[in-house]
Amino acid sequence: MTQKLFSATDIAQLDDRYRASFVNSLSGFKSANLIGTTNTTQQNNLAIVSSVFHLGAHPPLMGMISRPHVTRRDTLENILELGVFTINHVHKDFTAQAHQTSGRYVQDISEFDAVGLTPEFLNDFPAPYVKESQIKIGLKLIRTETIPENNTVLIIGQIEAVHLDPSLVLSSGFIDIEKAGTVAVSGLDSYYETQRIQRYAYAKPNQETKSISDS
Amino acid sequence: MTQKLFSATDIAQLDDRYRASFVNSLSGFKSANLIGTTNTTQQNNLAIVSSVFHLGAHPPLMGMISRPHVTRRDTLENILELGVFTINHVHKDFTAQAHQTSGRYVQDISEFDAVGLTPEFLNDFPAPYVKESQIKIGLKLIRTETIPENNTVLIIGQIEAVHLDPSLVLSSGFIDIEKAGTVAVSGLDSYYETQRIQRYAYAKPNQETKSISDS
Repeated sequence: MTQKLFSATDIAQLDDRYRASFVNSLSGFKSANLIGTTNTTQQNNLAIVSSVFHLGAHPPLMGMISRPHVTRRDTLENILELGVFTINHVHKDFTAQAHQTSGRYVQDISEFDAVGLTPEFLNDFPAPYVKESQIKIGLKLIRTETIPENNTVLIIGQIEAVHLDPSLVLSSGFIDIEKAGTVAVSGLDSYYETQRIQRYAYAKPNQETKSISDS
Repeated sequence: MTQKLFSATDIAQLDDRYRASFVNSLSGFKSANLIGTTNTTQQNNLAIVSSVFHLGAHPPLMGMISRPHVTRRDTLENILELGVFTINHVHKDFTAQAHQTSGRYVQDISEFDAVGLTPEFLNDFPAPYVKESQIKIGLKLIRTETIPENNTVLIIGQIEAVHLDPSLVLSSGFIDIEKAGTVAVSGLDSYYETQRIQRYAYAKPNQETKSISDS
């Protein structure tokens, strides 16, 4: 393939929607998660986000980015109000419903009802999980932080509970999210299933890269 | 599948390596990128990271997390020293070389040489790209910020240049990263190719979810 340069000036001059689609594609494949929240009047909310990321294992922390024009702000307000939220993997059999949660529903509509997914409250955790999801995570809010460069909000949560089938967890602790049917996202609207290429052992200098498997 | 609860206490009591693998899998699929840097003595460095994320389109910002125990600190030090870095997509044909960059090479070894990838300097940008990569991004450092909860470092960069084949960019601005051979990662060591399920139109309440395609 012949590569071409897109300069900062070229990118700044793109049409807004085109640029959003272009730049959103650059980071590579993204996670597909549904964020479940509620408020003091038990108005449930569900929103797809592709910005959840691993922040640390001990303590177990996850981050996500709330963008004014992409993520519904109801989610952020609910998280600030109750201090809890859930992260639920999106699987191949409900990508259309998951994507539909990004519609701008009015506040008193539950996206669970609007798109046909089921809120599930487990072990007295106060935010709703997605019953249809095979990997569900309950988190408490640690803090939010505004990124001054563009007024997006970084939300940091600590894992309080994980619900999944233990058969998905291999002997190393690795969770087989492909077996769970979890999908990946690219850009604003493209959903993918996966096919594992390889797992590799912890890399050491002066040793060839080794493949591993566990069960 | 029958789901089981893993509580915060259960997770805290896991063996360190098991917990790292378990928690790293929870966020879902991750991006696979090689970070190219150099320093004032032209000692090139290359490191795989799975924590690059989209932070905003206008200005075009990307974030990544530098973890003491996962990402080589040479990368962070070089970024602070020269104020620039590159993000290069990892493709199916060099996942083993990309993974091998995570070995703890001493500072005066270039991981480019050690693993067999080629540094490429383009348009006077001072950090090395990966020649073998189909999607290459040059960024200037905006700032770093330590996350006090676990001393990881959030690195925020602004896109200065993108190098790719224009035929990968569809009419909406969406970049077909699957066509480019870009892979996804899960956990610490598992690499995946993808198969698109569907692209969906911008979701609207009271309208059925529509599929789209562009070219």
